[in-house]
Amino acid sequence: MTPYSSLPNLVVSGPNGVQYAYRDAGDGEIPLVVLQHFRGNLDSWDPALIDDLAAGRRVLAFDNAGVGGSSGTTPHDIEHMAHDAIAFIAAMGLSRADILGYSIGSFIAQEVALIRPDLVHNLILASTAPKGAAGMHGWAAEVIGAVGKPDTRPEDYLSVFFAPSPASRQAGQEALGRMYSRTEDRDQRTSWLTREAQYDAVCSWGIPDHSALQRLAAIRQPVFVANGDSDPMILPRYSHLIAGLLTDASLKIYPDAAHGFLFQHHAEFAADVADFLAKPRNRD
Amino acid sequence: MTPYSSLPNLVVSGPNGVQYAYRDAGDGEIPLVVLQHFRGNLDSWDPALIDDLAAGRRVLAFDNAGVGGSSGTTPHDIEHMAHDAIAFIAAMGLSRADILGYSIGSFIAQEVALIRPDLVHNLILASTAPKGAAGMHGWAAEVIGAVGKPDTRPEDYLSVFFAPSPASRQAGQEALGRMYSRTEDRDQRTSWLTREAQYDAVCSWGIPDHSALQRLAAIRQPVFVANGDSDPMILPRYSHLIAGLLTDASLKIYPDAAHGFLFQHHAEFAADVADFLAKPRNRD
Repeated sequence: MTPYSSLPNLVVSGPNGVQYAYRDAGDGEIPLVVLQHFRGNLDSWDPALIDDLAAGRRVLAFDNAGVGGSSGTTPHDIEHMAHDAIAFIAAMGLSRADILGYSIGSFIAQEVALIRPDLVHNLILASTAPKGAAGMHGWAAEVIGAVGKPDTRPEDYLSVFFAPSPASRQAGQEALGRMYSRTEDRDQRTSWLTREAQYDAVCSWGIPDHSALQRLAAIRQPVFVANGDSDPMILPRYSHLIAGLLTDASLKIYPDAAHGFLFQHHAEFAADVADFLAKPRNRD
Repeated sequence: MTPYSSLPNLVVSGPNGVQYAYRDAGDGEIPLVVLQHFRGNLDSWDPALIDDLAAGRRVLAFDNAGVGGSSGTTPHDIEHMAHDAIAFIAAMGLSRADILGYSIGSFIAQEVALIRPDLVHNLILASTAPKGAAGMHGWAAEVIGAVGKPDTRPEDYLSVFFAPSPASRQAGQEALGRMYSRTEDRDQRTSWLTREAQYDAVCSWGIPDHSALQRLAAIRQPVFVANGDSDPMILPRYSHLIAGLLTDASLKIYPDAAHGFLFQHHAEFAADVADFLAKPRNRD
């Protein structure tokens, strides 16, 4: 299997006119489509995580409309981002996919499951929160200060994605090393316009709206909810909340880890995802 | 320290005219008041759990109004049960207490924290659920069938309070043995009227009311939420939901355990409670 760090950047044309940049890893019947975090592009996935996930299935990573190497414009709200993600999946000729959404990607994944339920086989929500949950409007000053600037430094990234312990920071350095091991044919950087639009969407998602929590009752797919115990960007309490509101959720909180828990614990997380996807489903 | 199984049944007169039966274990400044499960009386606490809890503090177990050896009438709703619990705590001359509510007792504990916040120092909710949560109206037929009959057999009790594994069932047998080791001066059995009133209150608590979930945002005390992973009476997802709705909650789900997880894992649970109560509080 070609490692993620050596996969070519491919392009597919969506029905919405967007040229989507993507990478196609592994092999399997139902692919796992992964939705990236705030400001992330194809190079922001830890290659070790994608390689672990792709050991047992096909994994499709892509830039959503306007992000990184994809054409088009990044919308200012999660709902339109979900339509853009659905358009990518349609462009790939897929009628059903497992979806792993990470951070803002987990908001988009929820919305995809609500807008186009038939498309979503199983759902994995990493560092997630429900729309409208009290207390999550925008990010803490130190978080958006660290990762929301025009140019972010590795130490800023580490302060949000990894816990303060030496072990977690060391894991963060190693993850960064893997992400930057690819020196040729890297993805295009995400633009400032994308950063602004994505943060608009994050803030809109966090406008307090208790009634919006009921939306989750409409998601009938099995869902695996996961976060790090020290995530400063999206607090673990929102993972509990979402697992409690969903009708068929399992939850795991990874120790001594923050927003990048799935990079830090890539082997364990990928094994948990494989176990989750292998479970017999009531509705099948 | 006198073991719980040898403590005398005491009586105190509440301001509401109720004569409360109680037992007073251990010693300490802020007592831990424990609120019992559906149909339980003073003998329904596993003595090993109370002894573990009382190793580091004073623990007060009591029968609420109309229950077991207490006089008065069991009300048909959680709010009135909370007022009756507040009256017991007032009768004991206490202005502040840590409260551990278990099952229906955890519903009452939430209500006490909402009605009389100054009284509640820290809150422990065991096998709990928020008022109005979707999907929890009444108990599953096999659950209320097992523990809601006029006379319940030990095997019915075990089927709800312990998981199906041999290890959990063995722990259940041992817990029952400890509960029945006291042969003299046992508490009075709970009546059928109490059983009916308590189940009315449980069903009312479970009437779907999404807006009622917001009530939990008003609980500002630190809360420790705990359940067994296989509780058939109050599903673990409601522990996640409540931990996500509270502003200052920690959560633990105990493995291979059901409604009686705190009896099965009495030493571990008591140690977790001690750690939780020893934590420095932001508001102190």
